[in-house]
Amino acid sequence: MSDQLFKQVQGGSVTTPSGFQAAGLHCGLKKTERNDLGVIICDVPAAAAAVYTTNLFQAAPLQVTRDSLSNGTLRAVVVNSGNANACTGQQGEQDAYAMRAETARQLGLDEQDVAVASTGVIGELLKMDRVLSGIERLPATLGYEPDHAEAFCQSILTTDLVKKEICLQVEVNGIDVHIAGAAKGSGMIHPNMATMLAFMTTDAVIPADALQGLLRDTTDRTFNMITVDGDTSTNDMLVVMASGHAGNLELTPEHEDWEAFAAAFRHVCEHLAQAIARDGEGATKLVEVQVTGAVSDLSARAIAKTVIGSSLVKSAMFGADANWGRVIAAVGRAGEPVDVNTVDIRLGDIVVLTASRPVPFDEEVALEYLKGDTVRITVDLHYGEGQAIAWGCDLTYDYVRINAAYRT
Amino acid sequence: MSDQLFKQVQGGSVTTPSGFQAAGLHCGLKKTERNDLGVIICDVPAAAAAVYTTNLFQAAPLQVTRDSLSNGTLRAVVVNSGNANACTGQQGEQDAYAMRAETARQLGLDEQDVAVASTGVIGELLKMDRVLSGIERLPATLGYEPDHAEAFCQSILTTDLVKKEICLQVEVNGIDVHIAGAAKGSGMIHPNMATMLAFMTTDAVIPADALQGLLRDTTDRTFNMITVDGDTSTNDMLVVMASGHAGNLELTPEHEDWEAFAAAFRHVCEHLAQAIARDGEGATKLVEVQVTGAVSDLSARAIAKTVIGSSLVKSAMFGADANWGRVIAAVGRAGEPVDVNTVDIRLGDIVVLTASRPVPFDEEVALEYLKGDTVRITVDLHYGEGQAIAWGCDLTYDYVRINAAYRT
Repeated sequence: MSDQLFKQVQGGSVTTPSGFQAAGLHCGLKKTERNDLGVIICDVPAAAAAVYTTNLFQAAPLQVTRDSLSNGTLRAVVVNSGNANACTGQQGEQDAYAMRAETARQLGLDEQDVAVASTGVIGELLKMDRVLSGIERLPATLGYEPDHAEAFCQSILTTDLVKKEICLQVEVNGIDVHIAGAAKGSGMIHPNMATMLAFMTTDAVIPADALQGLLRDTTDRTFNMITVDGDTSTNDMLVVMASGHAGNLELTPEHEDWEAFAAAFRHVCEHLAQAIARDGEGATKLVEVQVTGAVSDLSARAIAKTVIGSSLVKSAMFGADANWGRVIAAVGRAGEPVDVNTVDIRLGDIVVLTASRPVPFDEEVALEYLKGDTVRITVDLHYGEGQAIAWGCDLTYDYVRINAAYRT
Repeated sequence: MSDQLFKQVQGGSVTTPSGFQAAGLHCGLKKTERNDLGVIICDVPAAAAAVYTTNLFQAAPLQVTRDSLSNGTLRAVVVNSGNANACTGQQGEQDAYAMRAETARQLGLDEQDVAVASTGVIGELLKMDRVLSGIERLPATLGYEPDHAEAFCQSILTTDLVKKEICLQVEVNGIDVHIAGAAKGSGMIHPNMATMLAFMTTDAVIPADALQGLLRDTTDRTFNMITVDGDTSTNDMLVVMASGHAGNLELTPEHEDWEAFAAAFRHVCEHLAQAIARDGEGATKLVEVQVTGAVSDLSARAIAKTVIGSSLVKSAMFGADANWGRVIAAVGRAGEPVDVNTVDIRLGDIVVLTASRPVPFDEEVALEYLKGDTVRITVDLHYGEGQAIAWGCDLTYDYVRINAAYRT
């Protein structure tokens, strides 16, 4: 991906693309005074697309969002944190529909215009009195300004330590088009078709089907390539809305600037995906695994995800231990074709294995590199043209601490 | 499996079956004075069988053992801990063959009679001077007595905290036949066809092909159903030797006492597999996941292994948190057919989910149960007749501590 095709908007967020307002507030689902209810609203019917978790136990809000998205347009998405509204049965479904209805009423929209998302603990009913009175306060807190986007970004976090957002600018028909996104992650992160929760906005003119195709293709290479703990959530959802305010000629794969738009779109997804991995529960660093020379891209993805998901590799990264034996053991159990005699492994620029044979390296130099906040593991299989990159984080005491006591 | 078909031999180990001697000593591969070299030898050519890891990067000793086992008999197996002799290239192969040759020479056997196994760090060459001088001392330390079996059991351990051994007695043709086993486990445990290292002995008369069939079938239901960290080792190997000293009529599936023998055989494997899971790196408890009502046994196995392997479930078990939401999320991402409306979940005897709906339960009672040293999670899918049990352990601070600093 070339940096010349687009540039980052400093301080930009989900309301930077023209036509979007946001809000976020504390309604009482989180125990502390942190925001736990948010909304993004588009001034006009936005072309919209979404991808959802493949977990069979899908939370109630996903059903509501699918329903709203059936015509390819949305005006708003409302989201709560602190409660996933998952495995909550019929009452949970009613609650998710009630969230949609009340949001539509307060914002003067049709119910079908509103998507719903939730994140938090599984198996507890929403405190609907708090949710509904929170929704009542949303219209008064809406705005186009950065502080409203900030309030929204905060409202979707759970055990996340930092907010995740980005805004890019890309030229389409000589017009500056914006693409922005906000996400939350942290735990139960092993996305399969979408990550925990992510929301993207753009002012580009793009039809819903082109947007859906681009979204699906891009998430396979970005959000679906991260893992924190190998656990796929019940609530993963990524929603994108396009206001069309930029006034460019309609974007489809045939458009002369499609490549630039797609590159910027992918960069937004990649940035958010990496941010989720880096802020994985208890993580002290981002780990990137690049696999080249696999029989296919799909095969490379499977191998990269096996390495990034290995508890032993993750623990070694926490300890800054150049334990490449665990990397090659993970490669060997990925279930993909590998020539066991031709594998190269590097940690950063440090070559540790060539043609499957150990290469002596300076342990002190490796230690210094692995102590950094970003570690890159490169595996070249020399077996084909397939390649992929996966992102994850280290496995730490804090991951155990956070998850030994999450619910209680 | 009925307890009446066999009984446990108190204090029995791998030398309890008639015809087997063992030895173990410290040759200098481990930094501390713990045993790191061991051997089991049979007085006569033993019918033998083995299963190996499916990891593509198989350690050098596996190739040597396959070669020795090609005729279905063995006299001895030599094993070292402290170094896996994996990813060590041609020198590693030469070293493994040299271990076999020297063991054969010292014990007066043919090279083809000797199997070799190694466990420990990956990617470092064996200190062969220490290994060979250790093998030289083995004959003088051999014996039939329990302390020799004890020395062997100690010699195969790495980060294990306790030795794993068992001996059963089962009646075949009115004769007492013995089946014993010793194993090591602890980390990189997600066996696929065999576990880290396990050695079984029996004095039964049983041909190699019947033994191999029984071993394969049994490991699928025992060793292949445990996980500590989802990482399949490069060195997994299980070797069984039958001396035939008991003098029973040859055991095949047609033998009238086959069922009893197979049940005892399975109990030995199950005991060792559970012991490995309970002594997983950093573990404070054994976790058992029982899945019933799946479409098939294979499907039940996949679901049980997904639940037992979930980092979030494992962390919750460490924290004694009755977080069943993580259990159902794992069921939903296992990739197996499930009716999302008919799932029951119990923690011990505590019902937490019925027909996929939360059931109120006493949190204090659940906390007390989950604080125990054995936790049973039962998932009934009400979707078919398939069932399976998987074993694992909790994810703790100590797992991270052990694996952040294993190599350095």
